[in-house]
Amino acid sequence: MDVAKRLVLGQPFRSDRLGETLLSKRIALPIFASDPLSSVAYATQEILLILTLAGVAYLELAWWVAAGVVVLLAVVVLSYRQVVQAYPSGGGSYEVVAENLGPTAGLVVAAALMVDYIMTVAVSVASGVDNIISAAPGLNPHRVAINLGVVLFLTAMNLRGVRESGRLFAIPTYAFVAGVLVMTVLGLGRTAFGHAPVAESAHYQIRPEQIGLSTAAVAFLLLRAFSSGCTALTGAEAISNGVPAFRKPKALNAARTMTAMGVLAIAMFAGVTALAMISHTKVTENTCDLIGFPGDCATDAQKTVIAQISAAVFGGHSVAFYYLMVTTALILILAANTAYNGFPLLNSILAQRRYMPRQLHTRGDRLALSNGIIMLALVAAGLLYAFHGSTTRLIQLYIVGVFTSFTLCQAGMVRHWNRELRSRRAEESRALRAEGNSAAERSRIRRARIINAFGSCFTGVVLVVVMITKFTHGAYLVVFAIPVLVLIMYGIHRHYSRVRDELAIAPDDEETLPGRVHAVVLVSGWHKATRRAVQFARATRPDALTAITVNVDDSDTRALTRDWERAGVQVPLKVVESPYREITKPVVDYIKRVRQARPRDVIAVYIPEYVVGRGWENLLHNQSSLRLKARLLFVPGVMVTSVPYQLHSSHSRTDDPVQHTPGEVRRGITGPA
Amino acid sequence: MDVAKRLVLGQPFRSDRLGETLLSKRIALPIFASDPLSSVAYATQEILLILTLAGVAYLELAWWVAAGVVVLLAVVVLSYRQVVQAYPSGGGSYEVVAENLGPTAGLVVAAALMVDYIMTVAVSVASGVDNIISAAPGLNPHRVAINLGVVLFLTAMNLRGVRESGRLFAIPTYAFVAGVLVMTVLGLGRTAFGHAPVAESAHYQIRPEQIGLSTAAVAFLLLRAFSSGCTALTGAEAISNGVPAFRKPKALNAARTMTAMGVLAIAMFAGVTALAMISHTKVTENTCDLIGFPGDCATDAQKTVIAQISAAVFGGHSVAFYYLMVTTALILILAANTAYNGFPLLNSILAQRRYMPRQLHTRGDRLALSNGIIMLALVAAGLLYAFHGSTTRLIQLYIVGVFTSFTLCQAGMVRHWNRELRSRRAEESRALRAEGNSAAERSRIRRARIINAFGSCFTGVVLVVVMITKFTHGAYLVVFAIPVLVLIMYGIHRHYSRVRDELAIAPDDEETLPGRVHAVVLVSGWHKATRRAVQFARATRPDALTAITVNVDDSDTRALTRDWERAGVQVPLKVVESPYREITKPVVDYIKRVRQARPRDVIAVYIPEYVVGRGWENLLHNQSSLRLKARLLFVPGVMVTSVPYQLHSSHSRTDDPVQHTPGEVRRGITGPA
Repeated sequence: MDVAKRLVLGQPFRSDRLGETLLSKRIALPIFASDPLSSVAYATQEILLILTLAGVAYLELAWWVAAGVVVLLAVVVLSYRQVVQAYPSGGGSYEVVAENLGPTAGLVVAAALMVDYIMTVAVSVASGVDNIISAAPGLNPHRVAINLGVVLFLTAMNLRGVRESGRLFAIPTYAFVAGVLVMTVLGLGRTAFGHAPVAESAHYQIRPEQIGLSTAAVAFLLLRAFSSGCTALTGAEAISNGVPAFRKPKALNAARTMTAMGVLAIAMFAGVTALAMISHTKVTENTCDLIGFPGDCATDAQKTVIAQISAAVFGGHSVAFYYLMVTTALILILAANTAYNGFPLLNSILAQRRYMPRQLHTRGDRLALSNGIIMLALVAAGLLYAFHGSTTRLIQLYIVGVFTSFTLCQAGMVRHWNRELRSRRAEESRALRAEGNSAAERSRIRRARIINAFGSCFTGVVLVVVMITKFTHGAYLVVFAIPVLVLIMYGIHRHYSRVRDELAIAPDDEETLPGRVHAVVLVSGWHKATRRAVQFARATRPDALTAITVNVDDSDTRALTRDWERAGVQVPLKVVESPYREITKPVVDYIKRVRQARPRDVIAVYIPEYVVGRGWENLLHNQSSLRLKARLLFVPGVMVTSVPYQLHSSHSRTDDPVQHTPGEVRRGITGPA
Repeated sequence: MDVAKRLVLGQPFRSDRLGETLLSKRIALPIFASDPLSSVAYATQEILLILTLAGVAYLELAWWVAAGVVVLLAVVVLSYRQVVQAYPSGGGSYEVVAENLGPTAGLVVAAALMVDYIMTVAVSVASGVDNIISAAPGLNPHRVAINLGVVLFLTAMNLRGVRESGRLFAIPTYAFVAGVLVMTVLGLGRTAFGHAPVAESAHYQIRPEQIGLSTAAVAFLLLRAFSSGCTALTGAEAISNGVPAFRKPKALNAARTMTAMGVLAIAMFAGVTALAMISHTKVTENTCDLIGFPGDCATDAQKTVIAQISAAVFGGHSVAFYYLMVTTALILILAANTAYNGFPLLNSILAQRRYMPRQLHTRGDRLALSNGIIMLALVAAGLLYAFHGSTTRLIQLYIVGVFTSFTLCQAGMVRHWNRELRSRRAEESRALRAEGNSAAERSRIRRARIINAFGSCFTGVVLVVVMITKFTHGAYLVVFAIPVLVLIMYGIHRHYSRVRDELAIAPDDEETLPGRVHAVVLVSGWHKATRRAVQFARATRPDALTAITVNVDDSDTRALTRDWERAGVQVPLKVVESPYREITKPVVDYIKRVRQARPRDVIAVYIPEYVVGRGWENLLHNQSSLRLKARLLFVPGVMVTSVPYQLHSSHSRTDDPVQHTPGEVRRGITGPA
């Protein structure tokens, strides 16, 4: 049996052989960066969408907006480099905040991250499908169906528990990065030589929705565009959760990967935006605002920005164009997949701290994982369906969560550094150390603190801007969802605490030891299962042993007592009357009576059970004993023993195979990539 | 607690005080006859509906059809009088057939009866609503909704388990009977004095759907009409199921009640039909075939026959008219309710014989009953919805089931009498008894046999007629459903038999007695629940006692071992490693290893469990121990003991109140009516 399993599954990797399976930077980058890098695919587009609301004239502002986003990206990456070094345990935003700003702030971040994961799935899938449709416009009518299909696929994969392989992540990610960079270089090169690429939408005019804007209105529009552009940052913190999976020196390697990720993200975002501006790419929220758009603006879809510029640079039917579309779709789907890994991991951390049901903690536990995965999938699919798979409309819900965790995380880091400084001063005042060294240390910490403080303020401002500019466009949903989640988690926590206090053993308290053991065997008929129960009960040598049966049907009972005597069982059989032909209550009452007679005794109730293999067979057995057990648990001083009798069909049932759980790679629980 | 319950529920009646609670004929009649008597409300109508297909001219044939139905009714009542006397145990058709014609025939009847019960609900409710709408035509647009509403109401009442009171049945039934009889007398009286009542539809003409009929076609139409009229017989066997609930002499009283029921049914059916003919009442399947029908024939409803004649006799806005409509609707709803009583009762008999899941047998069992009730309600509601609550279309599915059980039941009786005769002859040949007495006996039996034989043939012929004439009109559904049900019941039976054989103890077979008991306590933390488990385990004085914990989280485990030592528990704590952070498998493997070491030992696994009160709390506890128990049951030589620790919240949970189960009255398990 077990051997067979090994043959099928191969020798699984054990967490006590972790050392061998850590990630090199080369592999870690694609694993953790697929989410942030993939956002390049839609960030620029979202900026243009907002600006064009005011008409073509305002498109020039995109340069400034993009610049703002790049700066923000740099700030966030720098800030998280500090996190990585300060928390090599890889706690990520939640642990940083919970530790430094207290549990409530921690829960807010946790809730924000949950929303974040859900939106990562929704937005990445939606955008991925956008690009598929840009390459194959014929699929547009099936947009929603394709979206749901992709979610279904991802869910199935993760439920089956396929083991992630780093390579699987590396190829499409690097392919996408290469594609975008090549496109940028080529495009800019051609521009330098005076042959700037021209987008198919270059000659379109735009019917502005907002005309004659006041300066204030323009400023607001600018901020809205900036908020949309901030989607380029989503997932930037991923690496900080995964430090333990890196090779030594973990912190340093993680920090370097962080930097590499930042540089790539900035380069790609800048490149795509530049090309979009150069090639005069135009997109609008409402296709019918595009004057000159060929085809029916009600039914046909615009091409994504990245599709338009790659078409402009490589040619709309070139291999390179399709290559870029495919890799874009792939990396976006990988990005969505990262949420399937992060979500259960977050849940298990929360469960460990008793903010989520306890059983979510044991990570190997299939059921718990499945619940998380299915929940994630359902909500994401629901959103995709409700918003008809529109990336633009979904993104409105995305950014709030992301920046809530950014801001709080950076704020937490500031607290962290303050504490560090204090402790060091304390140390020094005690044992005077080599000045120079510790001074260097302190200045490093101060620098880190400044970075984080600045990061926190900056992202905080962005958060406010996002809230204001996006609130009516859907962000309000998130602003509502986060506190609700926090309350639920608090409720769960309160329950667990109450139970813990109730179960805690005070030093002085000494439970009176139980007296004699009175064993009671429940009998419904005389057969092997009953016999085994009686023999097992006798094997425990109880002080008293009775068999009881409930008289539901007189003739059955008579037959039973006859068999009982004939078999010459050494145990007396007591018949309990059941005036209402029910089983549970008479038994419970009988047990209660026995208990009243000798309150200090323990009553051990033995219930024979058939064990069958197939599910439908269970419906035909043990139903009443199940209910009986449930009720008996409420009677103090009673323990309920199931004595199973395995029927042949039960042998058909095999052990569950070892399950590879999502997110293993990022936790370093997997084979060499 | 228990006292409080008594105060709330009152002292429930116990089945061991049955004697006091038996039914007088006066009360038994309405309880058992509401179904057959209520069919008077639609039988005549169904006859007219069919005949009018050929036009007004053929309406005269109704006399003959009605005559046929009356004869049939008499035959069936006479036949069942014999059943009542032969089977005072009140087995009803199923037991009669199973005993005399073998299990398969029995199952066919059982399946037929199930269909019968479902259709009783559907048809009675539909017809009841017809009459409500006849009194308040404005409700016609809401027909289906009202139908479903009534079913919902009945279901809720029966799920709540309100105790039936005989009085509750008596009033509307007698009120309906009185109403119909008064109407008949008054109507016929007026006719005698030359003032025959005239129905509102008397002057309507009918557009025949079938013109220029051949003699064969007319004969077929006649038979179809007759088949429809046979709905007057539905439920006629009810009394034969309820003999035990009668006062002594049970059989005699039941037989007399049967006769009374028959006489009333015949009188009422004949009366209603006569008045319908006299008053020239016209109804058609398709309202638009009625020439002269006021209002829109597409949306407006025709009045039921009983409504039309009572309007003709009493006057359309008289109190008497509304009185009759209300009582008609009421008795029809009561008739539907009888199915809610019969269905679980039949199930419990089948379960007793292992043709249905065992747990349906214990009649006091709420869960089982609820399942049956909900199943019945769902199917009936589904039919009402599918057929838009059309009585006529539903009736097509009704009669097949009824006559299947009639025919087989009577055939069974013939067999029964044959056996009786044989046994008596045998007796006499042995001990010669007073000739006269036994001769009288024998002739009585022969008479009974003739009656049943005739009844069987007659109903058999009707069954064939019904099958032929109704097949395409919906009966095919039933003809398909019955064998399917039979197969399912056989499948269940085969499973139980297989299990029984497997569990049966051969005289020579002696299970080797278990050796030592090795107790294993599962520990997740050191608290009161764990301590209790350890103390209970020790109280059983096992030969070996170990505590084990699964190391899912190193720090948790370290904390636990520390507490363990500090508490100075006398039991060694063993840490089981869990490379995949799961709980179930490592424990199961450990147990298996222990078992391999000493195969003859019994391993008693003690699992501490928290008992909480509210449902949602359970989601937060014991999840992993539940799965663990489920898996451990598959390991031979293991018994699994739950050691409950009752938390405060568990005290909020009270015992389930004594449940009054549908059909108690008919089984004599209730208070004096």
